[in-house]
Amino acid sequence: MRRSLRMTDDNHQYKLLYFDLPGKAEHIRYIFAYAGVEYEDERIQKDKWPEIKKSTPYGKVPVLEIDGQQVAQSNAIARYLARKFGLVGQTEWEALQCDVLVDTLGDLQAAVMQIMKEPDPIKREEIRARVTKEELPFYLSKFEKIVQENGGFSVGSDITWSDLVFAVLLDQFESMYGKTALNGYPSLKGLKDKVHNIPGIKSYLEKRPPKSPMPRH
Amino acid sequence: MRRSLRMTDDNHQYKLLYFDLPGKAEHIRYIFAYAGVEYEDERIQKDKWPEIKKSTPYGKVPVLEIDGQQVAQSNAIARYLARKFGLVGQTEWEALQCDVLVDTLGDLQAAVMQIMKEPDPIKREEIRARVTKEELPFYLSKFEKIVQENGGFSVGSDITWSDLVFAVLLDQFESMYGKTALNGYPSLKGLKDKVHNIPGIKSYLEKRPPKSPMPRH
Repeated sequence: MRRSLRMTDDNHQYKLLYFDLPGKAEHIRYIFAYAGVEYEDERIQKDKWPEIKKSTPYGKVPVLEIDGQQVAQSNAIARYLARKFGLVGQTEWEALQCDVLVDTLGDLQAAVMQIMKEPDPIKREEIRARVTKEELPFYLSKFEKIVQENGGFSVGSDITWSDLVFAVLLDQFESMYGKTALNGYPSLKGLKDKVHNIPGIKSYLEKRPPKSPMPRH
Repeated sequence: MRRSLRMTDDNHQYKLLYFDLPGKAEHIRYIFAYAGVEYEDERIQKDKWPEIKKSTPYGKVPVLEIDGQQVAQSNAIARYLARKFGLVGQTEWEALQCDVLVDTLGDLQAAVMQIMKEPDPIKREEIRARVTKEELPFYLSKFEKIVQENGGFSVGSDITWSDLVFAVLLDQFESMYGKTALNGYPSLKGLKDKVHNIPGIKSYLEKRPPKSPMPRH
């Protein structure tokens, strides 16, 4: 077992509440799959949501129930589980680098989401052109350099939850931009493929419900 | 000294890069002030920003330089320092609760920022009315209950970085909505006042540059 920041207790009942989508919960599912820890993956159907919404801490999902106690906030949940399961690196400095990359991937994702959110078709194409020409290559080239310098990992020299977040998002970018989207970024493509070949994650991907098509405008 | 999750090493050179504003760096300044740790508080003047921007990891601030190494992302920086200075609570469960509250305060802040961002004055007033009647009381009443139940702290039974983030944001809400804004929330008001009376923070507030007026539309 490699040395890592890892909590020792582990005998809990976990239940994840989220929609039947990757969205803001998929990295949490990857973390459970990586760790081989059992959890109930409750995928909320639309007609049940208004009722479940009222029972959540802040009217939002994902929510993780740990021994019946509800915890809100996607990345707070993911970070907590990552620390528990030894996925925050080997030092607090590496744990920091994970947090930085996860939030920076969030910035990139927010830029991409602007495309989806714009109702006006002409403005939408302007935003799409800008994001495709500016934000995407800006961030992806920086990430590519980091992963290359770390010999195939986003942080340090072993898998962290940051790698799992990368794999989830790079997969979504390929869904949006096509399978050639990562051709200029071999280290990122390699990272994504490496994560998807981890036995626990591979097995989860084979079993997960068929992905809903990405919303396209 | 209370028991807490705290790193032991501490002999580093810190330099914080941000604008001459509270914005996304004020909670980091509060954490340094609370801990009584020296740092260089570089407040970037507008004409210097284009040059400095290029030198940052992702074209954004705040950036914290730790012994010359640049670290991006406001909350990643704050969380790292909070752990270093014993401000993430006494257990990983409390560290999780800090993360949840900080991100939930971020959600509330994003709702409030929608008001500022809307260029159309009629739509802006609609958003302001909705946020003032719905999001603000929804979140503040939940936070009030938590702080009341914890005997005056947002997490556990002692100061955490979550309390400092609360103090910064509640102060901003009072700037926007007037000094009576927290009248219905005595525990939150008490928390803010308690944080602002911590000697290190009190001393920082007395010395900090006069606050620029909040942008109002």
